[in-house]
Formats: sequence, C-alpha cells, structure tokens
Amino acid sequence: MPNSDQSLQSLKPFFEPRSIAIIGASSNPAKPGGFPIAQMLKRGFAGDIYPVNPKQPDVQGLKAYASLSDISAPIDLAICALPGKLALEVTKQCANADVKAMVMFSAGFGEVDDAGAALQAQILTAANNANMRLLGPNSLGVTNMTNGAIASFAPSIAMAGEGAGNIGIVTQSGAFGNIANILLADQSLQLSKMMATGNEADVQTAEGLLYLAEDPATEVIMLYLEGCADGPLLIEGLKRARANKKPVVAIKVGRSEIGAQAVASHTGALAGADQVFDAVLRQFGAYRADSMEEFIQIGAAASLGVLPKNDQIGIVTVSGGVGIMMADDAEARGLDVAPMPQFAQDKIKELVPFAGTRNPLDMTAQVGADHSLLGKSMDVILGEGFYGAVTGFFGVLLRMPKAMEATVSAWQDIKNRFPNTYLSVAGPSTKEARAALAKIGIPAFEEPTHATRAAAAMAGFAESFTLPVSEIDLDPFVRNWPEGGIGEQACLEMLREAGVPAVEARIGCDENEAVGQAQDIGFPVVLKIASAEIVHKTELNGVRLNLNSADEVRQAFRDVIASVQAKAPNAPLEGCLIAPMVSGGVETIVGMTNDPVFGPVIMFGLGGVFVEVLEDVTFRAAPFDEAEALRMIDDIKGRKLLDGQRGAQPSDIKALARALSNLSKLCAANASDVLSIEANPFLVMHENQGALALDAVILKHPLK
Amino acid sequence: MPNSDQSLQSLKPFFEPRSIAIIGASSNPAKPGGFPIAQMLKRGFAGDIYPVNPKQPDVQGLKAYASLSDISAPIDLAICALPGKLALEVTKQCANADVKAMVMFSAGFGEVDDAGAALQAQILTAANNANMRLLGPNSLGVTNMTNGAIASFAPSIAMAGEGAGNIGIVTQSGAFGNIANILLADQSLQLSKMMATGNEADVQTAEGLLYLAEDPATEVIMLYLEGCADGPLLIEGLKRARANKKPVVAIKVGRSEIGAQAVASHTGALAGADQVFDAVLRQFGAYRADSMEEFIQIGAAASLGVLPKNDQIGIVTVSGGVGIMMADDAEARGLDVAPMPQFAQDKIKELVPFAGTRNPLDMTAQVGADHSLLGKSMDVILGEGFYGAVTGFFGVLLRMPKAMEATVSAWQDIKNRFPNTYLSVAGPSTKEARAALAKIGIPAFEEPTHATRAAAAMAGFAESFTLPVSEIDLDPFVRNWPEGGIGEQACLEMLREAGVPAVEARIGCDENEAVGQAQDIGFPVVLKIASAEIVHKTELNGVRLNLNSADEVRQAFRDVIASVQAKAPNAPLEGCLIAPMVSGGVETIVGMTNDPVFGPVIMFGLGGVFVEVLEDVTFRAAPFDEAEALRMIDDIKGRKLLDGQRGAQPSDIKALARALSNLSKLCAANASDVLSIEANPFLVMHENQGALALDAVILKHPLK
Repeated sequence: MPNSDQSLQSLKPFFEPRSIAIIGASSNPAKPGGFPIAQMLKRGFAGDIYPVNPKQPDVQGLKAYASLSDISAPIDLAICALPGKLALEVTKQCANADVKAMVMFSAGFGEVDDAGAALQAQILTAANNANMRLLGPNSLGVTNMTNGAIASFAPSIAMAGEGAGNIGIVTQSGAFGNIANILLADQSLQLSKMMATGNEADVQTAEGLLYLAEDPATEVIMLYLEGCADGPLLIEGLKRARANKKPVVAIKVGRSEIGAQAVASHTGALAGADQVFDAVLRQFGAYRADSMEEFIQIGAAASLGVLPKNDQIGIVTVSGGVGIMMADDAEARGLDVAPMPQFAQDKIKELVPFAGTRNPLDMTAQVGADHSLLGKSMDVILGEGFYGAVTGFFGVLLRMPKAMEATVSAWQDIKNRFPNTYLSVAGPSTKEARAALAKIGIPAFEEPTHATRAAAAMAGFAESFTLPVSEIDLDPFVRNWPEGGIGEQACLEMLREAGVPAVEARIGCDENEAVGQAQDIGFPVVLKIASAEIVHKTELNGVRLNLNSADEVRQAFRDVIASVQAKAPNAPLEGCLIAPMVSGGVETIVGMTNDPVFGPVIMFGLGGVFVEVLEDVTFRAAPFDEAEALRMIDDIKGRKLLDGQRGAQPSDIKALARALSNLSKLCAANASDVLSIEANPFLVMHENQGALALDAVILKHPLK
Repeated sequence: MPNSDQSLQSLKPFFEPRSIAIIGASSNPAKPGGFPIAQMLKRGFAGDIYPVNPKQPDVQGLKAYASLSDISAPIDLAICALPGKLALEVTKQCANADVKAMVMFSAGFGEVDDAGAALQAQILTAANNANMRLLGPNSLGVTNMTNGAIASFAPSIAMAGEGAGNIGIVTQSGAFGNIANILLADQSLQLSKMMATGNEADVQTAEGLLYLAEDPATEVIMLYLEGCADGPLLIEGLKRARANKKPVVAIKVGRSEIGAQAVASHTGALAGADQVFDAVLRQFGAYRADSMEEFIQIGAAASLGVLPKNDQIGIVTVSGGVGIMMADDAEARGLDVAPMPQFAQDKIKELVPFAGTRNPLDMTAQVGADHSLLGKSMDVILGEGFYGAVTGFFGVLLRMPKAMEATVSAWQDIKNRFPNTYLSVAGPSTKEARAALAKIGIPAFEEPTHATRAAAAMAGFAESFTLPVSEIDLDPFVRNWPEGGIGEQACLEMLREAGVPAVEARIGCDENEAVGQAQDIGFPVVLKIASAEIVHKTELNGVRLNLNSADEVRQAFRDVIASVQAKAPNAPLEGCLIAPMVSGGVETIVGMTNDPVFGPVIMFGLGGVFVEVLEDVTFRAAPFDEAEALRMIDDIKGRKLLDGQRGAQPSDIKALARALSNLSKLCAANASDVLSIEANPFLVMHENQGALALDAVILKHPLK
C-alpha cells in the first residue's frame, strides 16, 4: 500500500495525462473504446490521443496504431477497452511501453469467480512490476472535466454538459457514480473530476479521496464505498479534506446483514464493522448519506451554498403545517429553531395580520395574492442577522410558469443582500427552477424536510471545519512490550502510566503476603487470581469481592488457588491480586479493538444492559484528543445517565474523556503490539472525583 | 361531540349536496367566491347552484340572489366566502334558512387571537342551535370529485384534471392538502374527495376519516393532523378503515418540542403526547409519514398496487451498489430479502454471465445494451412466485426518450403476467414516465430506497388487514368503585380480579397480627405502611424489605409506624401490609394514564435505566387483545432482555401480554372512574412461570 504522498504523486497521470492511449479504440462513440475519444475531441483535450486498433488506419479522425509498441512517444495513461481475456496481455504490453497508469474497463475478474480473481492477481503483479498504477479492472474509468481528459465510458459524461464544476466524485461502483452525475446535472451542477475504482486491484477509493482533497478544482467530495482496503489512508484523506475545508459526503452501503453479504459477493471488498465505519466518518466530519437522493442533495447543497455560521435556523412558510413539519425535522437534527425578537415579529404582523410570527413564520396563502411578501418576509428574518441558515417554503410559486422567473429573481435579490447566510428554498418546483436557483447559489428541495436536513448537514460541516487540527504526539506513549501474556497488575499499571486511571492492585504470593497487602490497602478488598495466562477469572471461580478481614482474605486466597488449580492445572500462578473494593460511580466499558479496516479503534459504552441488551457502544479511530472524546461520549443513547439521574450528581465526564483520549494514544503508539484492551468495569465517579478502571485485560498481537 | 353514526349522517350534505349556495359569489373564478362556481360548472355538478351577491343580477352565467332568504328552495350546503367580520351574520342567515351544512372559508378567528376565538365560539353556537354542521372557519373547503360538488377554493382542483380517483384526503391544513393534491396529480393520481377542516370549530378530521372509511369511492385515505379533539372517534375511523381494508397514511406534525409549541399557536389544537399518537396510529394499522414526500409516495403506492402477500422482497438492479443500498433499507424496515433458489440463479447466469444472482440481482450495465433483459430478469424472479413484492431498478432507461415507451410497455407485459405481486419501479425517470407507470398500476420512485420503504409500508397494511377484529367484551370488567382512596391491598386485589397477576398482601393491624401474617405467608417477607392516603411509601420511610423472622417483622412494624406518623401525622393508617418477598424475573412497569386525546392508554416499559434514562416505553389505547399486547411488547428497544440474555431463560411473555390486555379491559370498562394505574415493579418470570405486580397504585378520577 503506498503512503499518502506517493499515492498523490502516482495518481497524477490519471487526472493530468499528457498523452492517452486507447487499446481497443473504436470508431463508434457509443462503445467503451470509442466514447473516451469522442468526448476528449469534443472537450478539446490538449494532450495526445493514441487510438490503438490493428484493423483500421484511423479512428474518429485520429491516426490509429496497430499496437502500443508502434507509438514512439511516452504514454502517461492507457485505457484497456478489450475483453477480459485479453487484459493480461494488454497489461504486459503497457508495462513494456513504460505506461505510467492504466485504466481497465474490462470485467469478469474478482467480481465473478475464483478464476477471475486469479487472473486479476496476475494483472496486478504485471502492473506492480512495472511500477504502473492500475485503475480497475471492472472500472468505469476516470475523468477530469477541466482539461477534458476523459478516460471513462460513463454515459453521464455525454449528458452532463461540457463545463466543469467543483464537485469531485470517487466511487467504487461506476453505475452509482454515473447516476449521481446525471442527477447533479439535473440541477446544472458539474463535476471537477470523477474516478470509479471498480474491483480496486490497485487504486482504491481512499487514494482518490486523498487526491481530490488536495485538488484545487474540487471543493466538495462525494464518496461511494462498499468497503475499504486501507482505513488509515481513508482517514488521511478525510483529514486533508477537512483541513482544506472541503465537505465530504459519503455513502457506504452494506449496513445490514444481507447488505454486508451482498458487498462480499459483489466486489469481495473488506467491509469491516459498519458501526466503526459510521463512527470514523463522523469523527472526521464526513456526512454519511443513506440514499442516493440524500447523497445528491447534500453534495449539491455543499457545492452551492455558504456554510451556516451557527446552528440557528429560520423557517419561512406559507403553510403552518409545513412549517411545523420542518421545525420537527430541524429540531430532530439538532438545529435550533430560535424565535424571532418581538420587534421583528411585529413587522411580520404588519405585513400579514394573520401570520404566524415566532419561527417558523407562516405568511399564509396571502403570498399567493401578493408575491412581494416572499422578499419582504425574507428581509425581516434575514435582517435579524443571527440565523446561520434560513429556508423558505413559498408553496407552488416555483411551479407556476407565470411566477417562476419573478420568483427566482426575488431569490436572487435576497441572495445579493444577504450573501453570508446559508439560504435554501423548499417546496414544489420544477427541474428548470431548481437549476435556475442553483445558478445563483441557492439549493432547492422539493420536499420541505430535505431543506432542513441539508441545513443541518451544512451546519455540521461548518462546525467540523472549526475544530482545531492538533497533531498528537505519540512518542511519550510508546512502550516496550514484555514477552508472554500480561498479568492484570501489569495491565492496570500500563493504563495508569498512560494516563488512564486504574485501581492500584498488589500481588500477594502467599496467604500471609495477601493478608499484609490487604491490611496495607485497608478493608474491604477484592482478591483475584494472578496469572498472565488467565483472562476469564470469574469463570474459574478466581475472584472474591468485599473481603472485610484478614481471615476472610486468608480463606479467599486458599479457595481461589485451589479452585483455579483444579480447573486450570497448567496455568502458571503468581499468587493473588489484592485491590481496594471500590464502589459507586457509573459503570462503563472502555476498550480497544483492532478493526480489520481502521486498525486500533477505541470503544466506549455504558455497562450492564446498555452494552448487553442495547448494544449501546460507540467507536473512534485512535488517536484522538479530549474534545473528540467528549463528542464520542455524546454518541451513546444512554448519555443522560452520566448527567446524573433523579437528583444524582453528574459524572466526571472530563476524567472519562481524558482516559479515552489517553487510551487512544497508547493504542495508536503501539498499534502493532496491542491486539485488544478492555477496562471493564471502568467506573466514572461524580464530577471532579475522577474515574477508575477496576479490571483490565490487554492482549498482545499474536504475531508478536 | 357526535357519535360516529350521527357524524356520518350529518356529514353527507358536505359531500352529497343537492344544492349549494355561495355567499359572496364572485364572477372572478380566481377568487374564493368564484372558484367553486367555475369548477362546479366545469365538472357538471348536477345539483342546484345559488350564487348570493346583492350587487349583480347574475354570476358566471347563473342567476344571483341578493340574499339567502331570496332562495325559496331548500339549501343543503352553504359556502361563506366573505370576510371574517361578516361571518357571524352569515351564519345566522344560514341558520334561519335551514341550511344543513356550512363551509366557512373566512379566516381571522381562533388561529389569530382571543377576540377571534370568541367570535368563532359565537359562530359555533349559532350553527349548533340550528343543528347545522360547520366546516372551518379558516377552511379551504370540501370537494367531491365524483359528483363535481366543489365547495373549496383549493387551486389544486383546477390543476388536477377533471376525473375522480380513489384517494380521499382529510386535512386540518388546507395548504397541505392542496399541495398533496398537486403532487398526486403529477403522477396522474386523482382524488375521490378532499376535506380541509381548518380551525375545526365543529367538524373535525376524525369525522372526515370516518366518512371516507365508509365511502365506496375512496380506497385509500390520506390524513393530515396537528391534534385531535376526539381521540375515540379517530380510533373508530381507523378501525372502520381497517375493517374495510383501506390503507390510511397519516402525517401528524408537532413531534418535536418546538413543533408542539407551533401546533398550539397555529390552531390551538389539543395535541396530546406525540408518542401516544404514534402508538395509536400503529395500533390500528395506519402508516405515519414524516415528510410530505413520504406521505405522497405511500398514499400513491397504496392507491395503485396490489398489496404484497408476504414480507419477502425481490430486488432486481443494474448496479450492485444500488442493490446493496436497497437491501440495507429493506432489511432495516423488516422486509426479508430472501435469496432465489439455485435453479433460478442459474437462469440469471445464463442471461448475464457476470450477474449477481442471489438477491438483490445485479443484471449489470449489460441491460443498457440489451433492454430485453428487463423483462427476462423480472420473469425469472417473479416466476419464483414466492416474493410478495418485487422492485426493479434499471438505471436511466425511463429517462431516455428513446427507451421510455418500450420500457413502460415492458413493465405493462410484466404486470399483465404477474398481476398478484406488488410490483414497483425504482430509479431515475421523468414525471411523464411515472405517470405512465401509474396508469398501468405500478408505482415508481426516483430514489431507490423509497421503493423499499413503500414496499414495507404496503406489507404492513396487508398484515394489519389480516388481523382478526375481535369485539372485546368489557362487561365483566366493570367495577363498583369505593369512596375515598384505594389502599395498596385493594389495588393489588383489583388487579388480580381483572386477570393482572399481583402479589397477595395481607394487613396486619398491629405488631402481633403482622407477625402472624408473616408466619402464614412464610419468610422472607416485605412490610409496608398501609394507608389509602399514602402513595409514596418509600419517601416516608414506610417500606422494609427482606424480613426473615418474627422479631424483624415486629421491629419493622414499630419503625414504620413511627416514621410515618412523624412525617404524615394526619394520614389514616390501617396498619402494615405484609407480602411475600419475591425476587427474580425481569422488572417491568405496567400502567395506565388518561391521555387528553385518547383517554385510557396502557403504558409498558422495562424498569430501571430503560424507563429512567432511555424513556423506553410504549403505549396502546385501551382496550386491546393479547395479540396486540404482544405487538406492543415488541415495540420497546430493550425487547431482547425478555428473550433471556447471556444464557438466561426467556421470560413469560404470554403472561405479560395477558396482563397488559386484561389491564386494558379493566381501564376501558371503568374509564370514567380511573385516573391512573401503575404496577411497578411488575415482575415477568421465566417462561411458563407467570408474572406478578409487586406494588400497585390506582388513582381515581378527581371528579369521582
């Protein structure tokens, strides 16, 4: 897997080729071998185009070459538009010709059967050996709409108009990207670049994301994923996009069980746990859409509008009912439907005596009789100045041929007067009206609640762009790892050293030592079997709680040793662990797992039924800072429990956040050594009283 | 409030008037007083139309009357299209003229201010005194598209074509209904009837629902609500619609806090608890939509398609990615994306070697080259015969002018061959293509996941129509209610008698009696203060758990009496209650509250953090049977806890369901007496071991 800077460099020939060879070039612009040539000619691609076709002297007016070796000039990018059975031979020819990058349209490989997968592996080897990047196989190709380099047969390119826009698409599924392009074109929105990665034998979506994150022509990135081969690279792409203030809208299919199965059979992509994916996208500020419609709408809105400067939204309608529906949706998405000041409400009453004035405004059907109320009401609410977003629902004005132009022009006036507010239009309109509004930078939504959904998404992007991007220093967290298993005492100590508070436990090698330790600690104490090899102590009857005297400790020591020796005769025993018996606080679980996609991932959840019945856990990719840990804590459904219930004191959330962040650093700094960590229970005490792991298990990576 | 049969009868003049008078009749068909006349003339309304306008001799070619009293014939329906300040006078004139029903377009009443509300009340009184039903004020009116009786100024009526369809709309908000009509017309779907209730001074949405439930011309009912004045009448309407197998799609706005506030200020409607509303709609099989788009789509699909005969869905696509996205959505909505048998999968491979064959089918971009694959692949999956619903996503075929007609015709063939499966089309199309598909009875959805959402909704309707409609006999549950408060022992007994198992508790009037009772019961026991006036026993330190001997009981008796006498010196004490100390099982809360809209409503939730932190409770309107109680139990998020966690035995869900159903009957039979019931904790034991209320509080209605 390339590192991120190598990746960026090696992708350049896909997007900025000086020369393109089409192997299997066709005179028919409807065929995969003909389409790219026709489009490049139409769009005035300035580089060299070399059709390769042994059967014709020229293709679409260009000189054709019988074979790649007949082209004497250097070739940056080659397209293989031949059937799959010829693909290996073509790859070898490209390798011999020092081609830098190759797009393989051909299908019938890893997505079909084992024989196809084997052939795909051979093609990859041939490409790798020649240091040639390979896009596909089974790829719909790659395009740069600015320079007209069209190495793709996506029909949408012919339907989408000739200009270039600011939206970049990276998609595993070519069909998905193609349809997205068409639907964006409906709103007169153009792409900057599009890359379809297909089977991802080599180039993967994460690399495309990385490229677009640094691409000046791309201001919004739309990403379709089924899985991800290199999670850290994806994170790097998300981080760079965020640093460059580029909204990322992502669809990641395979949420359901049946969906995950379908992903596996569709491209064989490694999907990882969907909820980890979900959390990582959130962690780095990407918006995850669940439908194509949502994907398009959020992408379109991000490409058009200024982002809202806060989460307060003003809603203006001509229907009380629609206004309430939008307020419901806005509130559910965390927006603040803040009321207008009385003075402004009075101004609305002056305009329409029966109006609803608080927010949502209801200008009533009166607007149908007096269209100027659109501008007047928007003036009042925007004049208040504090709303980050304002959306207007003015019934069917935009569907009425007579009123459409004047309405768009009224919106244009409003946009001119209030250029710094995120403005959107809700309600029935036409494709033409939406395109006209898009041209003046206002997203329009047929369905009123889609306007509030998009406003919330834009506020989310704006917020994530304000987060400080702190470099996290992992050096202080690098540890030397002992041979063999790690005993509980050592686990607890390791956590403590990393700034994850944990109970101080002592070893008693025999009864007397155990009693002495207990007396030092102070009763009541807990006694547990101490063995680096035994993880599930309770199951071996190796734990005694709430011991109140020397005698109880002595007896417990004997019982525990005897029980464990009977059940696990080969386990090396160090004696027993004695720890203070701590109670109170809120029981949580804090841990780390090695996600197959993202590597070390920190898990947090509340203990008891929250984890067991409700699966109420959340994740973050390690490492992260305390601010991110606070957002992580906010993810869980049982969050309220930490605020204190029924008059109980609130918990020390800061201590919890510090512990989660420190654990994430420990795990990230030792990613190749640690397989998993679980601190369970991890007690969060009352405010200002800290938090404490009572038990800890650290498993090392089996290869270590 | 009228009862349901009276209501049905009294609404007839709105929908089947033999004569209509328009007070404030206008020659201008764009004005509220002119629009209904123009539409009735255009649609050939066969009854008599009487324009009332003192200033002109005729209106739109009809003889005009200077006043209502000049009309000598009987008037079934009158429209008041004059300003609000004249509305009271008009109402009185209508009352004098023996008008049966009146539609009031005029606004500026209860929705605006207190003065308006007072005027509205006077108008209502005038109408009531004359036995005249009043629709509005602030109503957009009522229409019957079959007989052309248009007593409405909804502009959508002019835009929607002249035919009649099978969709009835009842809406509080006229604007909402108007836009819904326009959006349905986009798909060439017509209405049977529409009623906009506005301020609901008299006629309310529930009555409209009831009417449409019994209206032969209406096969699907779309309902927009902000609140509900008469919950039981709404339930009666939902029940009748279900009995007549008419899908009901409802929007009820005001889910959020800000939304509920807006509802209050919008029409002053009594909203009740949103989650109770939600549960009641589910209980009686209605589908609750959250957006206008969803509302329209579900209504349209219900009006077109046959309902699926099971919850298995087949998905055919030309994009693996879109297929997975649809499978994710289908599974999340409870549909079964069941795989095709191998034999059928082989047939698909024969059609397209690289196809995905399991389900979702991925016919690949090959369909673009060979359109006949649409029909062929649908034939294979429909030929399997077991899918209740099949949906097809064939890329942009329906957007391509060249392919559109042939594609619609291919769908027509499929529909003809498989008329009994719920068929739908997903993916980019055009308004024209969707209308053409609607004409042949196939709903089409731009967004692929909307096809799966609608299929799930249709499966839900189909399932709810199969539920047996049992008449519940409440007579055995009617009780005589004692004077004064009800002590815990009496509460527990009352529950037991009604078939809600409850612990048997005995009174000990003094120490010795208490000890004797405890010995009879067997240790350990619980002792609690016994007083009909004391509800919160724990707060008065009036409860002792786990008493193991006569001495402990004696001491507990003394302590409890002393403590309660100190803290509540005026409470009459009966002594102490002695009950067996029961443990084990899953702690739940079972109760009843008096909802302001729906009356006696049964509540169920799991105890502890589930209720306190997660607010994980659900509701049902009383009474209901055990089958409904089982569905109720399935609503809660913590449902899994009752299945047995970590190897624990599953709980006795049948006993729980029986208890909930019996409690619902007790509450319904004594609705005017009971204010609230809470059995907390209500322990649900292991399978076949029953369930048991350990504590019970029954509060009587303060008026009783």
